Amino acid sequence: MIITIGREFGSGGREFGRRLSEELGIAYYDSEILTEIAKRTSLSETYIKEIIEKKPYASFPIHIGRSLSPISSPIQEQTNIIYQEQSETIKELAKKSDCVIVGRCADYILREEKPFRIFVYADMEYKVKRCFERAPEDENLTEKGMINKIKSIDKNRKKYYDFYTGNDWGDRRNYDLSINTSNISIKAYAKSVAQLIRSL
Amino acid sequence: MIITIGREFGSGGREFGRRLSEELGIAYYDSEILTEIAKRTSLSETYIKEIIEKKPYASFPIHIGRSLSPISSPIQEQTNIIYQEQSETIKELAKKSDCVIVGRCADYILREEKPFRIFVYADMEYKVKRCFERAPEDENLTEKGMINKIKSIDKNRKKYYDFYTGNDWGDRRNYDLSINTSNISIKAYAKSVAQLIRSL
Repeated sequence: MIITIGREFGSGGREFGRRLSEELGIAYYDSEILTEIAKRTSLSETYIKEIIEKKPYASFPIHIGRSLSPISSPIQEQTNIIYQEQSETIKELAKKSDCVIVGRCADYILREEKPFRIFVYADMEYKVKRCFERAPEDENLTEKGMINKIKSIDKNRKKYYDFYTGNDWGDRRNYDLSINTSNISIKAYAKSVAQLIRSL
Repeated sequence: MIITIGREFGSGGREFGRRLSEELGIAYYDSEILTEIAKRTSLSETYIKEIIEKKPYASFPIHIGRSLSPISSPIQEQTNIIYQEQSETIKELAKKSDCVIVGRCADYILREEKPFRIFVYADMEYKVKRCFERAPEDENLTEKGMINKIKSIDKNRKKYYDFYTGNDWGDRRNYDLSINTSNISIKAYAKSVAQLIRSL
């Protein structure tokens, strides 16, 4: 039983994934994956996170199998190396035991294992409220600033996902279940979705 | 408790909706709505179905509240009348009792009642298989013909929905839950989703 979770920033996708793994009594992977990549590449976790979540990508998708062109930038090369390490780490984790994996194109990387693919999202109003509640004390964003932050992070997640998978991040066709968290209790919902998955 | 179900043709959305209503012990409306509109307009059910599912729409959306232009065609006028009757019928049904309503822009028409909005879809391979299993004996479509039929019906559903709601049919942002039926048992799933809805 492999469950992958794609999620919009601020939607509670991480919390949902963690609670779902607890309900099902299986492993949960999120930042652990970064730690593993860091070990393998001797790059720092912070740097890897930066690369994965914030850097721009070339405009042609890697999944079509081109060989790396000699003009690709050093940062693009490093992004590709990190993606490769990430793929291997995720495949190894999925082989070890049943698990929930959050983000990191896991739905695509593990496609041959037929994971149960969930996408978690919410209305902007909900995401803004949730982000303010959880903001670090020294983050003094206005509401507009917070909306921009949320949009910018998701724009980069989409770019990263679309680039490496050739699919459309958040499009229903890539998932088995898409969950809007705007009007629900994540805790209660995780319990119900765990039952639903057990019934498959 | 009002539940609306949008669905791709061949995905099993109707069956899912019916089973969900049975699990929850609430009313289920689908073609009943056509019967009611027929009564109110003295148009035949077949004709209404034709209008709703197959006719082209003008390229500007009605929801922006323009007054009907004198050049709009008689067929467009009739489509608008049917939509108005449909809206009223749906609002009345929703007032009567808890229910599941399939299709017919009910999620948009009932938006002020905050319904739980589900979208049901599936991979093309699954939809083709399901449609062949349920095809009338005298329908002799090739596989390609069946794919075209499915695509064409959904294209018209999308046109109708987008025209009258100004939203994007099937886009996750308009729904609370999107369900891919390709790899599941609709019966077992309806049971689980009923539990999930009860937990809200």
